[in-house]
Amino acid sequence: MSARGGDGGAGQQRLPGVSPPAPAWAGEERWARAAWSRLAEPGDAVAAALREALGPVAALDVVLGGAVDGPQLPGEAGTPRARAALRAALERWRPRVEGLDPRRDADALARLGGRVVVPGDEEWPRRLDDLGDACPPCLWVRGAGALGPLVERSVALVGSRASSAYGEHVAAELAAGLAERGVAVVSGGAFGIDAAAHRAALAVGGVTVAVLACGVDRAYPVAHEALLSRIAAEHVVVAEQPPGAAPTRWRFLERNRLIAAASSAVVVVEAAWRSGALSTATRAAALLRPLGAVPGPVTSSTSAGCHRVLRELQATCVTDASEVLELVDAASGSVVPVPVERARSGRRRPLEGLEGDDLRVADALPVRRGAPVASVARAAGLAERTVLACLGRLSLSGHAEEVGADERGGLWRRGAPGPSAPAR
Amino acid sequence: MSARGGDGGAGQQRLPGVSPPAPAWAGEERWARAAWSRLAEPGDAVAAALREALGPVAALDVVLGGAVDGPQLPGEAGTPRARAALRAALERWRPRVEGLDPRRDADALARLGGRVVVPGDEEWPRRLDDLGDACPPCLWVRGAGALGPLVERSVALVGSRASSAYGEHVAAELAAGLAERGVAVVSGGAFGIDAAAHRAALAVGGVTVAVLACGVDRAYPVAHEALLSRIAAEHVVVAEQPPGAAPTRWRFLERNRLIAAASSAVVVVEAAWRSGALSTATRAAALLRPLGAVPGPVTSSTSAGCHRVLRELQATCVTDASEVLELVDAASGSVVPVPVERARSGRRRPLEGLEGDDLRVADALPVRRGAPVASVARAAGLAERTVLACLGRLSLSGHAEEVGADERGGLWRRGAPGPSAPAR
Repeated sequence: MSARGGDGGAGQQRLPGVSPPAPAWAGEERWARAAWSRLAEPGDAVAAALREALGPVAALDVVLGGAVDGPQLPGEAGTPRARAALRAALERWRPRVEGLDPRRDADALARLGGRVVVPGDEEWPRRLDDLGDACPPCLWVRGAGALGPLVERSVALVGSRASSAYGEHVAAELAAGLAERGVAVVSGGAFGIDAAAHRAALAVGGVTVAVLACGVDRAYPVAHEALLSRIAAEHVVVAEQPPGAAPTRWRFLERNRLIAAASSAVVVVEAAWRSGALSTATRAAALLRPLGAVPGPVTSSTSAGCHRVLRELQATCVTDASEVLELVDAASGSVVPVPVERARSGRRRPLEGLEGDDLRVADALPVRRGAPVASVARAAGLAERTVLACLGRLSLSGHAEEVGADERGGLWRRGAPGPSAPAR
Repeated sequence: MSARGGDGGAGQQRLPGVSPPAPAWAGEERWARAAWSRLAEPGDAVAAALREALGPVAALDVVLGGAVDGPQLPGEAGTPRARAALRAALERWRPRVEGLDPRRDADALARLGGRVVVPGDEEWPRRLDDLGDACPPCLWVRGAGALGPLVERSVALVGSRASSAYGEHVAAELAAGLAERGVAVVSGGAFGIDAAAHRAALAVGGVTVAVLACGVDRAYPVAHEALLSRIAAEHVVVAEQPPGAAPTRWRFLERNRLIAAASSAVVVVEAAWRSGALSTATRAAALLRPLGAVPGPVTSSTSAGCHRVLRELQATCVTDASEVLELVDAASGSVVPVPVERARSGRRRPLEGLEGDDLRVADALPVRRGAPVASVARAAGLAERTVLACLGRLSLSGHAEEVGADERGGLWRRGAPGPSAPAR
């Protein structure tokens, strides 16, 4: 099929060193997509444009055939500037054509419980389509779970590798709380916050998904071999890189867009001023994904990135799993988040829950000796009959206590309301 | 003047126990306003409406004369419902008419360096007009400074009395940083965050203003007598309550609206889930004052109120004085706040500051032994000539190092860039 287009009048130009004919697998979209995942780095705009213009199979033909001037390049791809870009791109893809065999890659991965997932597959996470041109041509998935359904309701918990005990504690609390509520915890499998989140989700029997910057057959970091194997065995490990691919800094940055795109919401748990987690947050903001950040002490450099995300990306401040859940539900539209008046302390303060005239009368009551109603009215700035009505209510609730009698309405002092239902 | 309106056809109704004629001072607006500050509690809507309808002097006449049905009540104030409300209000103001003498109060306060400040005075803080109906009739001011000019550029730092060492540290840092930049620090003179803020402002020779819930001649809390005396001696202590007035819970809550209204911006430094500081924050939000909150550990109950303000009132996360200053400047329109890329760590990481192809090539370089350009190109997914161009730049910046020769472009490995100017 690389022989197609050889009849063009524009004069075929063939790059040296590329050997047609193309292998049989190159004609199937699944394998063509898989081949692209090895040929081009994530973020390669020319690769994306070529696949968009021709489809993955015909686009791969161009690479395997080395033809840049054939009539198979439609529309804008046929302009001189586009041809120049394509020529440069072919030059950078070429070193990776030799030995290209995605079917062999897939066979090897199958022995580890792996597979290639492409758009249209039931397992394809539909949210990835939000990436547009930056959508990966395929995903390499390893694990017992089905990726798409697993991340349907999910939260990415991301953060620094050099985490503090505080950050790891919060990551574990959030991950456990979310996993217990049936929300999948997505993270990057790294040291620090990522590992704390994955482990806590596993510990409560919840679902967790690791998105790697290298091939899913590799353990990176090596110290997480057992953790990643367990996630693959029970849930899912996923990457856009083909098996065997090394984790480079560039791939880490681009991997972060997958984490942001695949999840219902993204939460930065702990991050220094410069942290990879901030790139995930930036991607999430660009995708309009609900974005949260966990605050920490302003005196701690390990939280400076979170505060930056709160300030610069207008992230929502989240402090526990239920607040993260509000983010997720706001995204899915299933629940309108309402600021809820929650009672965090069981102990009730003397004037708590009172308002208006009742508060003013309770305010005006002496704590020890009783005072006549006239004096309470003067102190509260209220009419005596109003004060009497308030005292009636306040004595019922225990906020006021009648401790003696005088000619007009008794002597009153502050009462001590017992522990009761939370105010409001 | 309380004899006015006696010719009405509606039949004057006089409440018993009120003795005309009114004293001479009642005819002057300044003293009428001062009298109102003792008669009615803050938030008394009838008092505000009556003053609005008649002006403070004639409104006071109504109280001193006890007439509710005279022709001096214009418009809506003349409706039956309004008359009933006024009758009830007169009943609650009455207990405070006896002994009313704001001139005597002012004379006593003058011996402490005090005075009454009313709208129109140069010292009146114009921002208070934003309170509308809730604006106090006057302010009782004590101190060497002129209130209005002092708070022209000011930040209210508020928070819990039961503060932590963390909260006090941050309050002091912010107050000192703001005071050093010529911004007045406004607070409530209370234990905890308030005191830490006042003291730090004083310590750096800055301006600080205490807004009290009691008379400015009183020290509340008593333990802050020296602190409040010093603030009065060097700057300003202010209250809407007349001299001698006691601090009640109600007055604390209403005092908070003055703190919010008088300041250019409000920052909640540390606050528990239920804290008086949250009422200040709510008032600030209602007044559209720029509102900030300092985050803290989510595991600390003393910061829960700050996180609540960040979530529920969409406050801005602030972590240092310069970020608070952005709030102030945004309010005054003097500077458009721009997220500034600041380098917080002097130590530069190996790949920091690199992007695009340079990052990908640096990524692809081996750390120890040198690699040929062809192998780097393959790893980076870039054309060899692109890699050569990148290596040129990277060797200049120290990110790449040529360690040997081969037939095509040399052998390259990762370099170690020295400490340098902050990236970007």
